[in-house]
This record gives sequence, C-alpha cells and structure tokens, in this order.
Amino acid sequence: MNSSNTSRARRYAVIGTGAVGGYYGGLLAKAGLEVHFLLRGDYGHVVQHGLVVESKNGDFRLPKVNAYAQAADMPPADVVLVALKTTHNHLLASLLPPVLNPDSAVVLLQNGLGVEEEAARVAGPDGVLGGLCFLCSNKIGPGHFKHLDYGLVTLGEFSPTGAAVGVTDRMRAIASDFEWAGIAVTLAEDLLTARWQKLLWNIPFSGLSVALDATTDEIMNDPAAHALAESIMREVHGAASRMGRAIDESFLRMMLANTARMPPYKTSMKIDYEQKRPLELEAILGNPLRAAQAAGADCARLEMLYRSLQFLDARNRA
Amino acid sequence: MNSSNTSRARRYAVIGTGAVGGYYGGLLAKAGLEVHFLLRGDYGHVVQHGLVVESKNGDFRLPKVNAYAQAADMPPADVVLVALKTTHNHLLASLLPPVLNPDSAVVLLQNGLGVEEEAARVAGPDGVLGGLCFLCSNKIGPGHFKHLDYGLVTLGEFSPTGAAVGVTDRMRAIASDFEWAGIAVTLAEDLLTARWQKLLWNIPFSGLSVALDATTDEIMNDPAAHALAESIMREVHGAASRMGRAIDESFLRMMLANTARMPPYKTSMKIDYEQKRPLELEAILGNPLRAAQAAGADCARLEMLYRSLQFLDARNRA
Repeated sequence: MNSSNTSRARRYAVIGTGAVGGYYGGLLAKAGLEVHFLLRGDYGHVVQHGLVVESKNGDFRLPKVNAYAQAADMPPADVVLVALKTTHNHLLASLLPPVLNPDSAVVLLQNGLGVEEEAARVAGPDGVLGGLCFLCSNKIGPGHFKHLDYGLVTLGEFSPTGAAVGVTDRMRAIASDFEWAGIAVTLAEDLLTARWQKLLWNIPFSGLSVALDATTDEIMNDPAAHALAESIMREVHGAASRMGRAIDESFLRMMLANTARMPPYKTSMKIDYEQKRPLELEAILGNPLRAAQAAGADCARLEMLYRSLQFLDARNRA
Repeated sequence: MNSSNTSRARRYAVIGTGAVGGYYGGLLAKAGLEVHFLLRGDYGHVVQHGLVVESKNGDFRLPKVNAYAQAADMPPADVVLVALKTTHNHLLASLLPPVLNPDSAVVLLQNGLGVEEEAARVAGPDGVLGGLCFLCSNKIGPGHFKHLDYGLVTLGEFSPTGAAVGVTDRMRAIASDFEWAGIAVTLAEDLLTARWQKLLWNIPFSGLSVALDATTDEIMNDPAAHALAESIMREVHGAASRMGRAIDESFLRMMLANTARMPPYKTSMKIDYEQKRPLELEAILGNPLRAAQAAGADCARLEMLYRSLQFLDARNRA
C-alpha cells in the first residue's frame, strides 16, 4: 500500500466523521485517496492534530486531513460516504447538496432500513447505494478512533421499487478503492436481502441490549433471554420472507452460533442509551416494523420491542 | 360493629401475615372473630406488641392476637386464608395440614392463575376457594400495616375442571363474616372469569412496571407505553376468550380509564423487584401463558413479557 498513490481519481466525502466514518475514511485517506471529512465538535481538534486510528490491524495517524466544519465549504465528491447516526438523517437535505455532482454516488454506511430512501429524496434515487458495515469501532476522543474487530462492508445498489439491481460497475469501482485501502467488501446483488440479513441480528440484539440492559453474552447465557432473542429473530425472519427476502434457516442458526461465540459485546444502541443519545429506533425497528406490517407480517414481538424502546428512549432523554 | 361479638363461630387461620393477611385478618379479629395468625420473622414482635393497622377507614391496634411461628402449633380452622406470596406456595404442603379439618375452606387470597390447584393438591379440590383482593396495602414494619385504598374481595369456588360452580352456601357464610368485619365482598359465579378479569390488568401493569421500571402513571402518560400496555391487555383479553372466558370490551376500556385516573401506583411486583424478592412470575404470567397456549391462543406479547421478566428476576437476585 502506497500512501502517496494518486492513480485513484475518485474523490471521497465523509459526512459524519465518527466511529464509522473516521475509520473507513481514515483508511481511504491513508491509502492515498482524496478524502474530505465533515466534522462537528471535533473540527478544531482535527484541523490541528489530524486523525488517529488504533486498530488491531495496525495503528496509524493522519496528521493532516481535509477537514470541514460546514458542508458548504466542501468540494463536490464522486463518492459521498454518509456515516451519520440515522437519527441525524434529517440533516441530509442541507449536508448533501454541496458535495454532490451529477454523477455522485451516495453510500449510506448506516444501520437499519429506509435510510437510502432518506438520501434519495435529496440525491435522487439513481445516486444512492447502501453500505452495511460489520464493524466494531468506537470513538475514544476527538478525531481518535479505536477499531476493535471486523470491518467488512457489504455494498448494494438502492432501488426505489425495492427490486434487486445486481452488481453494477460503480459498486465494483467503489469496492476496488475500499479493497485498495485494506477494507474487505462484498457486493450484494440485492440490497434489501443484505439489509434484512443484518436486521435479523440487529433487531433482537440491539433492541434487547437496551430493553434488558444487557450485553450479548448476558442474553445468550440466560435461557429465557436467549429464547426471547431467538423468538424475535424468527419473527424478523418471517417478516423478511413476507417482504420477498427469504433467508435460509441455516443463516439464522449461524447468527445465533456466532453470537454465542462472540466476546461480551455492548451494542451501539446500548452505548447510545448509556450516553443519553437518541436511539436509532426508526432505522433499526420502526421502519422494518412498518414495512413488515404493510406486507402483512406478524410483528407482535417487534412492535412490543419498538414501543418499549420508544418509552425508554423518551424517558432517558427527558 | 361490636368487637366483643362471639356469635360468629367460624374459626379463621391466616397463613402469611403480611400486607394482605395482616389487613384482612386484623379486620376479622377486630370484629370479634377467632383468628389465628401464622408469622415468620415478625412472630416475636407480634407476640409482644400485637398488630397495628393504619387505614384510611380508621386506624386500629390489636394488642393481643393469636400468633404462631409454626403451623404445627395452630388449631384446625374452619376458614384458612392463604395470604403468602405465591412464590412460597411450595410451603403449603407443610403449612396447610395442621390447620385443616375435614370441612375446612381454604381461601387463596393471592394473585394470578393456578394457585387454587396448588392448594387443592394438599387440601383436596372440594376445600378450596379463590379470593381476589383489590387492595392497596403495605407492610411498613413488624406486624404494622398501612392500608392505602380499596379492599374489595371477590370470592369464588374452585373447580378442578375449571367449570363455573356458582354461588355456594359457604361462599355466603365467609362473605357474611367479611362484611361483618367491614370488608366488601362480591361473590363470583365463576372463579376463572374473575381471575382472568384481574389478569387483564395485572399482566400488563405488573409486568411492564418491572420491564420498564415504571409506575402506572408513567405507563399511561407515555403514548408508546400506553399503546404497549393496551396491546398486552388485548392479548390477555383474547386468551381469556380462548379459555371460554369472554370479557366484554367495555370492561377492558373501564380498566384503562380507571388506571389513567389512579394516583401514581407502584405495583407489588415492582416493589418485590426493588427489594430483590422473587417475582410472582409463575402465578401472574407463566401459568396464564401456558394455559392460554394450551388453548391455542396467540400469546407472543405475553411470552415476550414473561421471558423478559424471567431474565430480569434471575439477574436481580443473582
């Protein structure tokens, strides 16, 4: 890897330089790509000190990065990586236009369902992709990120009809940049299948981590909580089928087996809850629930979890 | 009311002299009935100082009561009031036999479902009645009870087949003693209908009070928690119908309206949780869930609540 490489002509913008945007954007910049970072509170610190990434794959520092406090100051980019919390997606209407050119690809590096729709309202449906991040990374200080494990990104094209689009040239181009930067990528023929596969884990374990105030190991090791997580997972599995995204039973069993083997893990929803930040409820629970209900799926557990979390979230921030 | 009245010949035993047994037994004793109280930790104090009841209907003190530390020391009684927490019902096998004569009536002053079955295994099915207490009462010290509100007892005959037995002479006799002591009584033709009516409130509000760590007013005043409580209530309503106990929709609406008008109320399950005592999970949730599932009712919410509480209860007492 050559940090002065300039043969890769695509310019990147990172909208939201947190645990996800800071890590992936940092790797792209380290690999020599042109990356422009939008920051909020950390802007002053990052202008002075750059970005620091501690990673199990090797620590690195970028002393000087293209940092911005305002999207209006940023140049248009070929690839816009949206790495905001989904609870801030209402800001896309003002944050995206300055960084868009007619051919920009906007990649939502976000959890949940329905986030591409939110970007498509601003960028148009043809400009939007989803990027699902299987990443354990935390922000531990201003412009300072700690990568704990994993890192795979699954890319998929958005379609306003929900149809599978297949693998496109621009997916391959973005994947080639990511891989050049050392980021593993899989290309999904169907974004919605990938999103429902991720929800299969995210809904029960993010949800219960807050509802039960528990880490993944506490959930997996208690027979009642384990059965509860699995019953919610099976409901999501049924909802995905109703949405035309049948997921093989073996995938579900693999998810549970992997979770049982994971070290004790605190979900990002639980971290948000502990830090009294708004929970990503709509992206992770509300949107899937409404989509599944509209398709006629049985969603009693998902609805109950969603409502419990709405109550807990509102009280937590009161 | 005449505290020296001795014309009422029925002898009472109170098994478990807590907030329920102490209050009702205290009223019966104050009215001149012969009442024998089984105590545990408070025995020494009550032998010396008797019982004290503070009540919105008038405070009273019984300086000398028939107190016992062991059931084996008690005389057989005509009416045995079981006012243990249901989590102690495994003790009935040793506590009941000494106080039974061939015609004893055992009245379960307990919450939930399936508690009469537990007593019937010891006392025989013909000796058992249910008594549902609509009572706000706390124990505030040894032998010292504070009656906050309500007090109605609904009596009904147990039947091992679950059939409605109607109103019997012994129900009327016990009711006459209670009313003599100033305790309001209703006589239920069908104990199971009465139990499911009470579960309609108890399952959502006891359950959510612990699962959400919330008082009734917090639940009623938050739109999501309110909707959640109502959806659980409707599931219990459906389960009751499946069990052949259709409850009118107007009753459900009345329960919700009454709850909205109640002063902020902490359920006994929440108090148990806060004091790290075992929750009455099987009587209030587990037994109704299994009965409803066996009848083919849809119980996703009830099951989810039950499992959440099993996890929370186990961790709470770990």
